[in-house]
Amino acid sequence: MIFRQGEVHLFRLEEGEDLLQGIVAYCREAGIEQAVVSAIGAVRHPTIGAYDFAQAVYHRLTLEGDWELLALNGNVSSAEGVEGPFAHLHILLGGHDGSVRGGHLFSAEVRVAEVALHVLEGGPLRREPQSNGLLLWPTGEGGDER
Amino acid sequence: MIFRQGEVHLFRLEEGEDLLQGIVAYCREAGIEQAVVSAIGAVRHPTIGAYDFAQAVYHRLTLEGDWELLALNGNVSSAEGVEGPFAHLHILLGGHDGSVRGGHLFSAEVRVAEVALHVLEGGPLRREPQSNGLLLWPTGEGGDER
Amino acid sequence: MIFRQGEVHLFRLEEGEDLLQGIVAYCREAGIEQAVVSAIGAVRHPTIGAYDFAQAVYHRLTLEGDWELLALNGNVSSAEGVEGPFAHLHILLGGHDGSVRGGHLFSAEVRVAEVALHVLEGGPLRREPQSNGLLLWPTGEGGDER
Repeated sequence: MIFRQGEVHLFRLEEGEDLLQGIVAYCREAGIEQAVVSAIGAVRHPTIGAYDFAQAVYHRLTLEGDWELLALNGNVSSAEGVEGPFAHLHILLGGHDGSVRGGHLFSAEVRVAEVALHVLEGGPLRREPQSNGLLLWPTGEGGDER
Repeated sequence: MIFRQGEVHLFRLEEGEDLLQGIVAYCREAGIEQAVVSAIGAVRHPTIGAYDFAQAVYHRLTLEGDWELLALNGNVSSAEGVEGPFAHLHILLGGHDGSVRGGHLFSAEVRVAEVALHVLEGGPLRREPQSNGLLLWPTGEGGDER
Repeated sequence: MIFRQGEVHLFRLEEGEDLLQGIVAYCREAGIEQAVVSAIGAVRHPTIGAYDFAQAVYHRLTLEGDWELLALNGNVSSAEGVEGPFAHLHILLGGHDGSVRGGHLFSAEVRVAEVALHVLEGGPLRREPQSNGLLLWPTGEGGDER
């Protein structure tokens, strides 16, 4: 789906906020329906996951302690059956020895989070339940203009 | 080189498509000549590489099975001797245990790919063969306005 | 803080330049006060870090040899007591075996660096010293419009 580039929001979440919920709450309050998201900073006790397509479930993993927030990538759109903005975000985390872990973001306590939201005007772009168990946008054969 | 920010395309590739070729094909069909690219999702059997500057070759590595697509970063421009849009993309992949691998993207079968293309208006920005064996844009001493 | 999306600069740094200082110098010369930054390429001998909140110091680590620049994420703004643009960047690095390391970027010698700067118009957005020892933007309770 094709959007016009809107405003860009660059802001810091509060220490102690949840990273995922903080971004969703920011979008709700600011009336942002679609955005491309990125962030850096540091988080505590992140819970990440990887999707098992055979079993149609996420494998979840909680990492203890402090981690550098090396990258947060993804988007905000909407989803059938979900009230308000829906964020789909993947995270990369750095240990104090330079090692890296990562996955689908479920939750993480913010130490520092500098978030950039590139707001997209147009839409809506809406996720729908798929046969593989995920909430996804339609592809080209579906509802977008590709 | 300085560009005007154009439209932003946010879309999902089909399951089974090649990630790199799918993005190139999308740009060709949409008439996109330059873009900043990002994506998240999941892929199968990715082939990644790292450039060996001493030997002027890429070391390639194919990873078996399913991987979270934690980040895809790079750009679309054009290249001397290459028909149509040229994508240069680096990928970060997450295993089901939270481990991370990554490199230059050669190929990967899409499970899910949510792609954001920030289209850049202006240019063209064109890669040319360099003495180190790579296809690169000119630097400031070369053709751009820096 | 809310910005208007300005021009997008897509350029290549010279081989041998420092990645961090090269981006800061580019912004200074181009009069860029705020930007969202991303890059891919390859670097040598990067020095990365992770912040220790208990001791209020960065743990630093220098990695020998060549690394793929898999992702560079962050922003340019300004900081109290710092002349000119201030870049806060996190880096992800790929080894020749596909392994990944990463952290806060202190320095890295450019082999190839393709940088995208999404310039933000508005501001200024200024970092100030915090009780945790870091230079950070105010949060919503502070000076931004959230």
